[in-house]
Amino acid sequence: METNNCVEVALSEGTPLSTELLGKLDAYWRAANYLSVGQLYLRDNPLLKEPLKLQHVKNMLLGHWGTTPGQNFIYTHLNRIIKQYSLDMIYISGPGHGGPAVVAGTYLEGTYSEVYPAITRDEEGLKKLFTQFSYPGGISSHASPQTPGSMHEGGELGYSLSHAFGAVLDNPALIAACIVGDGEAETGPLATAWHSNKFINPLTDGTVLPILHLNGYKISNPTVLARIPHEELEQLFRGYGYNPIFVEGSDPDYMHQRMAAALDYAVDRIKQIKYDAGQNPDGPRPHWPMIILRSPKGWTGPKIVDGKQIEGTFRSHQIPLSVSASAPKEHLQQLEDWMKSYKPEELFDKNGCLIPELVELAPKGNSRMGANPVTNGGLLLRDLRMPEFRNYAVNVQSHGVEGEGDVHVTGRFLRDVISLNPDNFRIFGPDETVSNRLEEVFEVTNRQWNAATQQNDEFLAPAGRVMEMLSEHQCEGWLEGYLLSGRHGVFNCYEAFIHIIDSMFNQHAKWLKMTNEIPWRRKISSLNLLLTSTVWRQDHNGFTHQDPGFIDHVINKKAEIVRVYLAPDANCLLSIMDHCLRSRHYVNVIVAGKHPSPQWLNMDEAIDHCSRGIGIWDWASNDQDVEPDLVMACSGDVPTLETLAAVKILREHLPELKIRVVNVVDLLKLERQSEHPHGLSDSDFDALFTKNKPIIFAFHGYPWLIHRLTYNRTNNNNIHVRGYKEEGTITTAFDMTVLNDMDRFHLVMDAIDRLPQTGTKGTYLKQALEDKLIEHKEYICINGEDMPEIRNWTWS
Amino acid sequence: METNNCVEVALSEGTPLSTELLGKLDAYWRAANYLSVGQLYLRDNPLLKEPLKLQHVKNMLLGHWGTTPGQNFIYTHLNRIIKQYSLDMIYISGPGHGGPAVVAGTYLEGTYSEVYPAITRDEEGLKKLFTQFSYPGGISSHASPQTPGSMHEGGELGYSLSHAFGAVLDNPALIAACIVGDGEAETGPLATAWHSNKFINPLTDGTVLPILHLNGYKISNPTVLARIPHEELEQLFRGYGYNPIFVEGSDPDYMHQRMAAALDYAVDRIKQIKYDAGQNPDGPRPHWPMIILRSPKGWTGPKIVDGKQIEGTFRSHQIPLSVSASAPKEHLQQLEDWMKSYKPEELFDKNGCLIPELVELAPKGNSRMGANPVTNGGLLLRDLRMPEFRNYAVNVQSHGVEGEGDVHVTGRFLRDVISLNPDNFRIFGPDETVSNRLEEVFEVTNRQWNAATQQNDEFLAPAGRVMEMLSEHQCEGWLEGYLLSGRHGVFNCYEAFIHIIDSMFNQHAKWLKMTNEIPWRRKISSLNLLLTSTVWRQDHNGFTHQDPGFIDHVINKKAEIVRVYLAPDANCLLSIMDHCLRSRHYVNVIVAGKHPSPQWLNMDEAIDHCSRGIGIWDWASNDQDVEPDLVMACSGDVPTLETLAAVKILREHLPELKIRVVNVVDLLKLERQSEHPHGLSDSDFDALFTKNKPIIFAFHGYPWLIHRLTYNRTNNNNIHVRGYKEEGTITTAFDMTVLNDMDRFHLVMDAIDRLPQTGTKGTYLKQALEDKLIEHKEYICINGEDMPEIRNWTWS
Repeated sequence: METNNCVEVALSEGTPLSTELLGKLDAYWRAANYLSVGQLYLRDNPLLKEPLKLQHVKNMLLGHWGTTPGQNFIYTHLNRIIKQYSLDMIYISGPGHGGPAVVAGTYLEGTYSEVYPAITRDEEGLKKLFTQFSYPGGISSHASPQTPGSMHEGGELGYSLSHAFGAVLDNPALIAACIVGDGEAETGPLATAWHSNKFINPLTDGTVLPILHLNGYKISNPTVLARIPHEELEQLFRGYGYNPIFVEGSDPDYMHQRMAAALDYAVDRIKQIKYDAGQNPDGPRPHWPMIILRSPKGWTGPKIVDGKQIEGTFRSHQIPLSVSASAPKEHLQQLEDWMKSYKPEELFDKNGCLIPELVELAPKGNSRMGANPVTNGGLLLRDLRMPEFRNYAVNVQSHGVEGEGDVHVTGRFLRDVISLNPDNFRIFGPDETVSNRLEEVFEVTNRQWNAATQQNDEFLAPAGRVMEMLSEHQCEGWLEGYLLSGRHGVFNCYEAFIHIIDSMFNQHAKWLKMTNEIPWRRKISSLNLLLTSTVWRQDHNGFTHQDPGFIDHVINKKAEIVRVYLAPDANCLLSIMDHCLRSRHYVNVIVAGKHPSPQWLNMDEAIDHCSRGIGIWDWASNDQDVEPDLVMACSGDVPTLETLAAVKILREHLPELKIRVVNVVDLLKLERQSEHPHGLSDSDFDALFTKNKPIIFAFHGYPWLIHRLTYNRTNNNNIHVRGYKEEGTITTAFDMTVLNDMDRFHLVMDAIDRLPQTGTKGTYLKQALEDKLIEHKEYICINGEDMPEIRNWTWS
Repeated sequence: METNNCVEVALSEGTPLSTELLGKLDAYWRAANYLSVGQLYLRDNPLLKEPLKLQHVKNMLLGHWGTTPGQNFIYTHLNRIIKQYSLDMIYISGPGHGGPAVVAGTYLEGTYSEVYPAITRDEEGLKKLFTQFSYPGGISSHASPQTPGSMHEGGELGYSLSHAFGAVLDNPALIAACIVGDGEAETGPLATAWHSNKFINPLTDGTVLPILHLNGYKISNPTVLARIPHEELEQLFRGYGYNPIFVEGSDPDYMHQRMAAALDYAVDRIKQIKYDAGQNPDGPRPHWPMIILRSPKGWTGPKIVDGKQIEGTFRSHQIPLSVSASAPKEHLQQLEDWMKSYKPEELFDKNGCLIPELVELAPKGNSRMGANPVTNGGLLLRDLRMPEFRNYAVNVQSHGVEGEGDVHVTGRFLRDVISLNPDNFRIFGPDETVSNRLEEVFEVTNRQWNAATQQNDEFLAPAGRVMEMLSEHQCEGWLEGYLLSGRHGVFNCYEAFIHIIDSMFNQHAKWLKMTNEIPWRRKISSLNLLLTSTVWRQDHNGFTHQDPGFIDHVINKKAEIVRVYLAPDANCLLSIMDHCLRSRHYVNVIVAGKHPSPQWLNMDEAIDHCSRGIGIWDWASNDQDVEPDLVMACSGDVPTLETLAAVKILREHLPELKIRVVNVVDLLKLERQSEHPHGLSDSDFDALFTKNKPIIFAFHGYPWLIHRLTYNRTNNNNIHVRGYKEEGTITTAFDMTVLNDMDRFHLVMDAIDRLPQTGTKGTYLKQALEDKLIEHKEYICINGEDMPEIRNWTWS
């Protein structure tokens, strides 16, 4: 590596831009800034052909100026290097509220008008462009799904860099220029995302070019990274493994030369790294370049307003200059002066078209960042080549044979999905892929890892289809970036800790909902979350690892987007996984067990059951020809086991009872049709659950979720739900169900309580089971494990 | 600052420990390791007085060895410096599953037996100590709430450093030794928590001494920080602003000397920094020392088992050696050899007591890390000095007068709470305290900030009661640390982004639930979350900023722990805030508006209403002497406004209707008494909501939450809920309610639909309101703001 000092001197002295090109770039930047201010303020008179009046200004001024000129500056310079070096590049706008910049950039290059033909490249189009911004029925202030070229929305901060790294995986020629705001850089997810460079293969993956924008301020505070010494800042990013290039200042001419030199250097380094990797695929981990751009917040905006400094301070975060009937009158003139400082007459012809010599600065066709198909990933999406999932079936000769762990079986299926799709399918997980029993995937692939290795490591390689870092944020962010750019994947996670990415899920679900409503956006592959190591089997991890509430969180989002599946056994899980991997534009939450547990359905039965999503298990029921006395419902592997064990007790001791067993795989079948597309009609629901018979429902998650889904069903008042009620500790698997009253004995007692016809026999049985619970408690206290009759229980 | 190289050489050559002391420290460490292995394996024969047999070994081996010996090493050495320098120190165990180490450390120093008298310091006690670990009814594998000296549970990873920094705020003499696992260090929250050093005042706050434990491996992967070059690692932590001291190796004698030298140096630096700060309170931000300890995972454990290397690899993460009837027979002997390698006969007398010369190595009394009252913060908790909240009342001469923003009013109250409690109350927020309209707190305090400042900064100072960093994780983690160590605080946050800390809330709620059940744990101050900038008023931020679902998440946790309040106006918010700040051991979620909005209740009415939590607003109702025809219920400020506007329309156009208005402040009043301590009895619920009349319920959050709370109430089938249904964009405040069918017009139409007696008049009114909605849509499209009749609406 070149020594840093030499590079810094060379970069700070060179003048790579000719005077002419510098002038053009500056003009292009001014045009983008002009369009940005226009979006914030105007609804008429877009070219300032007449003196600015209040009626040309919007009634409500909403939007953010602070980050915008810096992003316009970057976009302009990236256009130059795309053309000069024929780059395949996308633009990720990390800072919040950078919408005006990305809209301006894509409008100037022409993509905006191609996507929205009404927003023409003339005065009329400019007027519409300005008016729609942050306006009812218009566009939002971030680089939202509505913005061409965006695959990342700067609404909630923290995920830009993970998205960028996810997008370049398996896209070796792609460069994702990722603008990281110095506010966003304070978030946890962003702070660890810098380490993504230890997981990138320079030969088979693309490049992320981070551009840390030291804008200096957040809403009203300075930023941490802008207020530490240069030496610390440089050490931090060298420590993260980057080669940082500094571009610092405020004078436009100076900054244009510095930015151009920095980008030339960065492209040169990237090409060199790629070349070296080709020569020596096992070479050392490269130190990728990154740019640290320190420029004033609200750059080129009003310097002083009402005696207070605006440019370069937090006061330029949103609208830096109030203009309205109630604001000081001189503000209107200040706005006009500000806009005219960009000399629009030099930039646009009298019809409002960008002048040809500036038009030609932008790349052409799909090289334009607003048109790069990577950012509308559905355009690039190829169906997975799927192995036949039936071939992985567990042999279930009789109901209840012992299994090997449901997830473990699916691991074999995923292994072969990997083999068949070597360049567009990946598995992500926070160091849990083995723990979650998916280890058979390592028969055909490795964990991708580009840091040092040692003798006793297992399954690490410079290229591999499994991405593991101990950060749920990174796993989710990488996967989202991978999906948004048109590929497929699965995130496997301990159930309790998926809550870490609750908010990322929110934003992804919102993105999916929005893009569903935008005609030019193509559907992408579903986000598949495989949740295992569930609440019921945390024998050795205890209370902190017990939380099945992600489902509750998920179903608040739009019904068109979310799907929830609870696999009762391995064959069902195979069927579910196959279905989810083929699906589009959903978030699929799949809950499954990893521990050996009984297997209930052969493959044909499983396919039939999963395609219905909910159904009566006839073989476990004895109500074949009559109305049942009792419905025993269950959802999830452990609840299914306890339910069947309870049914066995009931049928043995109270054989006259007619019992129906209902299992729920597709949880949203319980909702009404009007609420969710999978929802059962009321008549179908009644046919399954009866109109008036007691229902004992053992549920994998928090019990009240079932009530929330069924409150408006005919028989809702007879549904009695058992589930996790936040009781747990280090204990045996069966005792976990006892602590939460969801064990077989409690389920039987619940049933008897609701069946007065069981009379004395019922009362005696209850008493016996209560004794059994006491016996169980004593046994585990002495032996530290479950009673043999529990451990060795079988259905048949 | 001394140049690094000189320090490193001095540290790597010195032998600060005498041979005798080194021997004793090593013996103490061996004792801790012995106790740790005993906890993992044994249920009998704790001193190995007889040859080890299978019946002495637990049936289920659950627990984690990997991190344990390194933590025992650290604990032993910290004991030395606590005694030598009379330090006030606590131990935060960040790595997952470090339970055996902290239990061993506190047992050896005596605190464990003081807290749990049955666990005596003799052979019988050792047997119990060993047996209870990871055993049903026993203790869990983390430094859990059951562990004395722990105020942080290494269950979910990522929050140790934030907790440590929170604990040292306003504790100037305290040193929090924070062991950070290299696995945990990969998480986002931990990666940004290093920057906490920019927010610590060396004069008024204590010190965090981070000890990054490079154990090398996670569950089955190497860690990132253990696999980057030494140079990068050092740059990273210098870049984070620390002065890193390296202790690297595996030979115990060598490592004891290195660790001792490192800790001597660290204590010297800390004292120097403190002294310098006293001399020059405005001096530069100090570079606090930190220690990077690189030692083998599973250090001193089995080297090779079944031909595979264990020590120093991921294979020592959990149980490194299987011992059971089905495991290879030689494993039992290996276990005995391993345990005897610690020479227990030299450490414990024949009764199982630690020998006196080792006993004296531990600090005494509250200097023992297991006994430091900071870690049982309730011991130190002082009530807040509270200003009289009634004095901040808004003057509500008539119902519906315009307010200034409810949170803004409470800002004045919080300002004076700050003034009255200068050393044990703080406000936390992710750069939103001003945006959330709490800016009046800055009349009496500042944001604490120890990085560089510039001329245009506002409200920054080296010491201040407001902590702001753009990381919800940090705000929450700092506050949790502050509360757990016995102080008070409020976290103010945009409503949508509180989901970022969903999982942190989970863990804190679990901690509160557990500590409630442990007699020696004292109650701490409640975690107060003030959620504002709510879903309904995201005019300029749009869809990404709209999510009211944190409430749904919260109420899955134990009813004894969680409270949810929705303030309809400023006086109610004052009453709620006063109540919450006085409460103990809850998580209080307070949802309130920051925008100017109508004020409904004078202070007496507000106090009465809030103390009931739910009630009829008589002045808005006309059912005084009769059974109502209709209940109009509401919860939250915007729903209350829309409900009252709807009631006004109904009463004007259909005056014969008897309407009851019910407002809900304390959301969990809706639950049954059996489910939540605040829940209404069925008869009280029926008295408010009737047994059979239609209820139109306008709710702040997702509508189905109301159904989940009320599904088992008499009149549940007549509850019709409107709320946020995930529809939104950049638009006007009123249009947000229209998009979600929660506006006044829809509410009226909903009522008419359920009141056939309104007949033709109702039909005409519905038609008129539908026309009004069309008119509204057209108006805002043209004008970009709400119709004057909406903007200027008043109740009276």
